[in-house]
Amino acid sequence: KLKTQASAFVVDKGNYKHFMAKEIHEQPEVVARTLAHYIDFANNCVRLPFELPFDPKALTGITLTACGTAYYAGLVGKYWFERFARLRVEIDVASEFRYREAPMPENGLMLVVSQSGETADTLASLRYAKTQGQKIIGVVNVSTSTIARESDVAAPTLAGPEIGVASTKAFTCQLTVLASLAIALGRARGVLSADEEKRLVNELMVVPGLLAESMKLEPKIEQLSHRLGKTTDVLYLGRGPSYPLALEGALKLKEISYIHAEGYAAGELKHGPIALIDEQLPVIVIAPSDPVLEKTVSNLQEVSARGGKIILLGDAHSIAAAATPLAGEIVMPAMAPDFSAIVYAAPIQMLAYHTAVFMGKDVDQPRNLAKSVTVE
Amino acid sequence: KLKTQASAFVVDKGNYKHFMAKEIHEQPEVVARTLAHYIDFANNCVRLPFELPFDPKALTGITLTACGTAYYAGLVGKYWFERFARLRVEIDVASEFRYREAPMPENGLMLVVSQSGETADTLASLRYAKTQGQKIIGVVNVSTSTIARESDVAAPTLAGPEIGVASTKAFTCQLTVLASLAIALGRARGVLSADEEKRLVNELMVVPGLLAESMKLEPKIEQLSHRLGKTTDVLYLGRGPSYPLALEGALKLKEISYIHAEGYAAGELKHGPIALIDEQLPVIVIAPSDPVLEKTVSNLQEVSARGGKIILLGDAHSIAAAATPLAGEIVMPAMAPDFSAIVYAAPIQMLAYHTAVFMGKDVDQPRNLAKSVTVE
Repeated sequence: KLKTQASAFVVDKGNYKHFMAKEIHEQPEVVARTLAHYIDFANNCVRLPFELPFDPKALTGITLTACGTAYYAGLVGKYWFERFARLRVEIDVASEFRYREAPMPENGLMLVVSQSGETADTLASLRYAKTQGQKIIGVVNVSTSTIARESDVAAPTLAGPEIGVASTKAFTCQLTVLASLAIALGRARGVLSADEEKRLVNELMVVPGLLAESMKLEPKIEQLSHRLGKTTDVLYLGRGPSYPLALEGALKLKEISYIHAEGYAAGELKHGPIALIDEQLPVIVIAPSDPVLEKTVSNLQEVSARGGKIILLGDAHSIAAAATPLAGEIVMPAMAPDFSAIVYAAPIQMLAYHTAVFMGKDVDQPRNLAKSVTVE
Repeated sequence: KLKTQASAFVVDKGNYKHFMAKEIHEQPEVVARTLAHYIDFANNCVRLPFELPFDPKALTGITLTACGTAYYAGLVGKYWFERFARLRVEIDVASEFRYREAPMPENGLMLVVSQSGETADTLASLRYAKTQGQKIIGVVNVSTSTIARESDVAAPTLAGPEIGVASTKAFTCQLTVLASLAIALGRARGVLSADEEKRLVNELMVVPGLLAESMKLEPKIEQLSHRLGKTTDVLYLGRGPSYPLALEGALKLKEISYIHAEGYAAGELKHGPIALIDEQLPVIVIAPSDPVLEKTVSNLQEVSARGGKIILLGDAHSIAAAATPLAGEIVMPAMAPDFSAIVYAAPIQMLAYHTAVFMGKDVDQPRNLAKSVTVE
């Protein structure tokens, strides 16, 4: 039941050993293509490729549901919708949302996110939301999918067919669409000024270049992966939009290497998971230079004080701020903080990929997993 | 900086080896005491020990923040507020919420939950919500705490002083208060009829007895814990209110045994974590007889089909429904599904406790952890 737009593209691995590697490296291109679909590059503003199916000023709130990686894209999106459009976002995994008969607001927007557009629980959530009078936007990678058809508006990600079971380029394209939509809603609701829109769009426009630059870190990341490949458990920590990225990093590693990786909000560390810290457990801290860096650094130092082995994914500034011995570091290019989650996704994917390859796992077809979950 | 009402109680371990064991076994009594504070046993209705600081009919939504175990209590509460009072609940860990400058609704209620009433991130969230014009209810165990003082209304849990670092009786008392509050709001908003209130209150009234009954399962649970104590990784799965319980079960085991346990929504299994399943990994499935049992059983069978070792926490009906070989089972008394999360908390705590004791860990003072997190 796997449906992709494969027929419209030449789908082979090119010079790559795995589809997943190819798809990771396609990201600068497919994110740029997706951006070009949502952004007016000549005027530095968002131009949605569809009419909004509601009056943005009358919008009372957003409900967002998805599964797996698409859910984590939604979690990042929540930060953007709140900040750029001042909209409350209730978010839940689709398999929980669909059975709750959740109350939904009048003039509410239901956002669903799905690569295949066929994810059973996400589709069921969409259908429930319809019965509750919500307007539906479906962020999907397959424009002929059921979710695309049943949404009031399908917001396409132009990632092209994704063959690797572990989602990579679909994720960054989902983030790109959610960011564009948040800016558009912010403008339409009178929350963002034209200048702020321009600034944000300028930041989005450099994302493909930053993704390309981050690909150059691959040799360093591959080297780190040889250490990760010898462990059985890993913790990922982040704050703000880097928190969902910690969840996604852990999911990626789980999916293809079968290492038990877990993502946590860095601020929750002291409420439990810090008990796990010993001299064996690698802790991957995602810390771009952003307004919560100082708080993340304080958590990182707590891990360090207990002998934890830290791999820091940050930029030169955040690595300097850590001021503690690191077991490894991935030095990302400097960038504005607003959309760093899109760029930082790439090293996280590469780390999982190389760890699994080092361990001799079948990264394109991990055990037990299917590409699209079209049953409940 | 640990503050408790210890002076008002005799605090010793009695006949127990650890405070945690004593506090687990106090639950039938302290939950009953908390219930008696919120429920009119003569008329089978909720009677809040305070005036609501807002007009319940004008209430537009709830925001709920907390940390660690209190956050998981809030996640269970969300199901009740939605179902009994038809209120949307936006919930987030306090360390994320406080830095987001989240938009908050007019006529909104901010619910914060904290055992100590001093949790730094939760307190900061409360203060932010105040600047946004929210009414505040603080569910706290220490009535002289900062959060109690700064809330519009302090809703006390009458758990008595909790000394064990891993929270147990505070959690079930928090659930009891949230359940009572959800019923009260449902009645006040005209969502629940007097008959429905009576039915729900009757179900709450039998919770202490069911907790006492579940304590009898301790020998069986201790026996299972000897197997768990030999593993390094565990997965907990649940749906609906059993999903936060899966998170809490994993947290409890992490905190005191240092086993890497992780909780997951059962419906998310196929979106990643199923890749971890092999013949070594114990999977604890929490499955009371409730409307989502059938779906949970289907996830359980997927785990079983891949050789996963399942420990099922359910009642006789759900264990029969599993229809698959189990590595272990904990057979709970039959009960109505609405408040099973309160009762099912006890075996989950006992399982973590006995596993840690079997492993020779210091369960009352686990490494790296403090009882109250009063710093950020």
